[in-house]
Amino acid sequence: MQKPSIPKGTRDFGPEQMSKRLFIFDTIRQTFRRYGFQPLETPAMENLSVLMGKYGEEGDQLLFKILNSGDFAGGLTETDWQSGAKKLTQKISEKGLRYDLTVPFARYVVMNRHALPMPFKRYQMQPVWRADRPQKGRYREFYQCDADVVGTDSLLCEAEIVLMVHEVLRNLGIQDFTLKINNRKILAGIAEAIGMPGQEGALAVAIDKLDKIGQEKVIDELRERGFSDESLSRLQPIFGFSGEAAEMLQSLKGWLSSSETAQTGIAELEEVWQLVSQYGLVDSQLELDVTLARGLSYYTGAIFEVKANGVQIGSISGGGRYDNLTGAFGQPGLSGVGISFGVDRIYDVMEELNLFPAGSQQSTQVLIVHFDTDARAVGLPLLSRLRQEGVMAEAYPDITKLKKQLDYANQKNIPYVVLIGSEEVQTGQLSVKNMVTGEQQKQTVEELIARFSQL
Amino acid sequence: MQKPSIPKGTRDFGPEQMSKRLFIFDTIRQTFRRYGFQPLETPAMENLSVLMGKYGEEGDQLLFKILNSGDFAGGLTETDWQSGAKKLTQKISEKGLRYDLTVPFARYVVMNRHALPMPFKRYQMQPVWRADRPQKGRYREFYQCDADVVGTDSLLCEAEIVLMVHEVLRNLGIQDFTLKINNRKILAGIAEAIGMPGQEGALAVAIDKLDKIGQEKVIDELRERGFSDESLSRLQPIFGFSGEAAEMLQSLKGWLSSSETAQTGIAELEEVWQLVSQYGLVDSQLELDVTLARGLSYYTGAIFEVKANGVQIGSISGGGRYDNLTGAFGQPGLSGVGISFGVDRIYDVMEELNLFPAGSQQSTQVLIVHFDTDARAVGLPLLSRLRQEGVMAEAYPDITKLKKQLDYANQKNIPYVVLIGSEEVQTGQLSVKNMVTGEQQKQTVEELIARFSQL
Repeated sequence: MQKPSIPKGTRDFGPEQMSKRLFIFDTIRQTFRRYGFQPLETPAMENLSVLMGKYGEEGDQLLFKILNSGDFAGGLTETDWQSGAKKLTQKISEKGLRYDLTVPFARYVVMNRHALPMPFKRYQMQPVWRADRPQKGRYREFYQCDADVVGTDSLLCEAEIVLMVHEVLRNLGIQDFTLKINNRKILAGIAEAIGMPGQEGALAVAIDKLDKIGQEKVIDELRERGFSDESLSRLQPIFGFSGEAAEMLQSLKGWLSSSETAQTGIAELEEVWQLVSQYGLVDSQLELDVTLARGLSYYTGAIFEVKANGVQIGSISGGGRYDNLTGAFGQPGLSGVGISFGVDRIYDVMEELNLFPAGSQQSTQVLIVHFDTDARAVGLPLLSRLRQEGVMAEAYPDITKLKKQLDYANQKNIPYVVLIGSEEVQTGQLSVKNMVTGEQQKQTVEELIARFSQL
Repeated sequence: MQKPSIPKGTRDFGPEQMSKRLFIFDTIRQTFRRYGFQPLETPAMENLSVLMGKYGEEGDQLLFKILNSGDFAGGLTETDWQSGAKKLTQKISEKGLRYDLTVPFARYVVMNRHALPMPFKRYQMQPVWRADRPQKGRYREFYQCDADVVGTDSLLCEAEIVLMVHEVLRNLGIQDFTLKINNRKILAGIAEAIGMPGQEGALAVAIDKLDKIGQEKVIDELRERGFSDESLSRLQPIFGFSGEAAEMLQSLKGWLSSSETAQTGIAELEEVWQLVSQYGLVDSQLELDVTLARGLSYYTGAIFEVKANGVQIGSISGGGRYDNLTGAFGQPGLSGVGISFGVDRIYDVMEELNLFPAGSQQSTQVLIVHFDTDARAVGLPLLSRLRQEGVMAEAYPDITKLKKQLDYANQKNIPYVVLIGSEEVQTGQLSVKNMVTGEQQKQTVEELIARFSQL
């Protein structure tokens, strides 16, 4: 018999990993809720008509497609068979797996627009699937945790995202991080100012690689993309900005004085900074980075990217403002802004920095060990009472050797074991063993309950 | 442009439904944890080699299959195309969507058996997908919430399932329910005792319909399945059992005295009752039902089924013991017992009986309404402090008319609104409006924080 396996790029999450992941999910969810975001879940399967064309040509190929049910091959002709995978897919598949949470969100908003409060603030924490080539840190199934507001262009929403990022990461214990912000309008203004108006897309794609390939290669790439030497020399200042945000914004105003778009972007960033300060954010880790571009995305205003410092792991969160979330579904003009947390990378950061609190992995707190049915008759009501007090407790189900039962406690990382044998049944004094220190003491049922209900 | 839609049999869960669903999930999860079950998640996609043949021929057809990525049609010949959907599927699809949580659990246990504590207690709460014909109450995507113990045949596990069902339903507010229990060995013993040994499968399938079609039609069906008139007359007592479990078990002992298997099943049920009573379960709603069969399932010992009383909704939970969970994956001899909660039906029961607590739907508790930027400068630090106190609070992002902001509060079911205008800025006395009673009063920031932090 073949040994069973799971599809490449997918993962099982066993108890230890799950406990840690649930800690991350719960922390993010609590913050989202505290900021007034409401939960949404959409189906894993979407109609391909909803998904196709939303993620570029590469995205279309990376969608997992679901074979139609029943006799999917029945009505097909030889021509269909020979038309190639792409055309054939249209005949035998109508549904695909969710590729991100943004397109399903946009679809949901369009389908329910009359029933939703506007602005609409939703969070969504669900897996997505991409037929990418699996590699270290890249999976075919992974969770996204998104919060978006649509139906307003108030910059208060950007400020709230800044606050939420700080709150989520600090609650997770990730104290040292950098939240970079930029504005797509500044990038557009730079393209204008260097004489390449409308080329901010190409500019963004190249500049996005600055961290990885360095300044020279970015310049090379832009030259290949048709940026003249003069444009590139006028671009130089972009690589030199640093320091306090307020000073940088002043310098930008001067450099980009010819571009109205850039001035709007700069003013927006100034307002975000002002709002964040009004909120009273302590030890802000917000930084302006005029080279932050976030690729060929649909962002039109603020863009965000978050990295944990001290680890070699990519961005753990990102987002931005978009002007036309639902345009592809026939409802133009809905502006919104969102942030997405990457649970897998956050997990890796927390593992590497040893940030998971001890309690997050612990499940059962007390194991009751009994040696015969008389002892079990004493143990079971104790077990019920412990659970009534909210203690996570269990009894080893079989009557067996002590060693086996203690091994079980150790394997499950259970800190306390209550031992009940014939002596304990007679005296009413049960033995409690601390599995960490090895310490053992005798206590009555009432003492035990009082003690463990405070765990 | 075509209006977007979702695949039939699937659903979006908006904020109100999600809040209620999360209440159900959290309640089930808490109980599972309190009983020492640990979380597991498996991928949505499994290799078809893992899934196929595990759910019968009908199940194989109801699996959602995923089209292979890339040029899936490249290497196919005309013969392949003409071989029919079933054979062709094998050539163009290697993966399918999870159909239940039991087979992935079995696969996980086999792949990780050396690392798992035994007995292994896991819970799993994830969606499953079935290409069933959608109808009222039957969906193509739905959640299962399962808890299983494998690696022990201790009847303590059955007793714990009885306790967990009581605890979950009572914590949800479903006080009036019936937890029916039977034992497959008793059904096997009945088949023996009426002279149809080995025919308990057919017996189970027919008897399973007793509630729906009545005694006469069950008899008719069994006759068609080859049960003789003599067998059927010897079967009569099964329809007459009622009363206290202890008495019924006594009567069963007499009726089925010729079957050793039945005697084992009866003894097992007696022990479960004894254990449940040792645990001290108050107002047990456990009932013996010798006609409970749970279809053609893989159960070999205890079987469970739970119905809420007073509503016309099918079973909301069910489970049982199986002897050979992992046999199909080459690891025989692992006995286990499990229970599954159906979130969709529990949701329907709670809706119909109006059992969702008021708090479960509420998200934001306080909305801050400001009329200009000066007012906003007072509102934002207040907002931060409220959130620090754990209050779910938000500000309306735009500076706009009062009516629009109050409409938003009403639509989101926000109970309190803090109004800040120029007068409030000057006096420091903010207006707080109770959106339910309409009552309005003036309070300072400190008074407000003290008040709302107790919400």
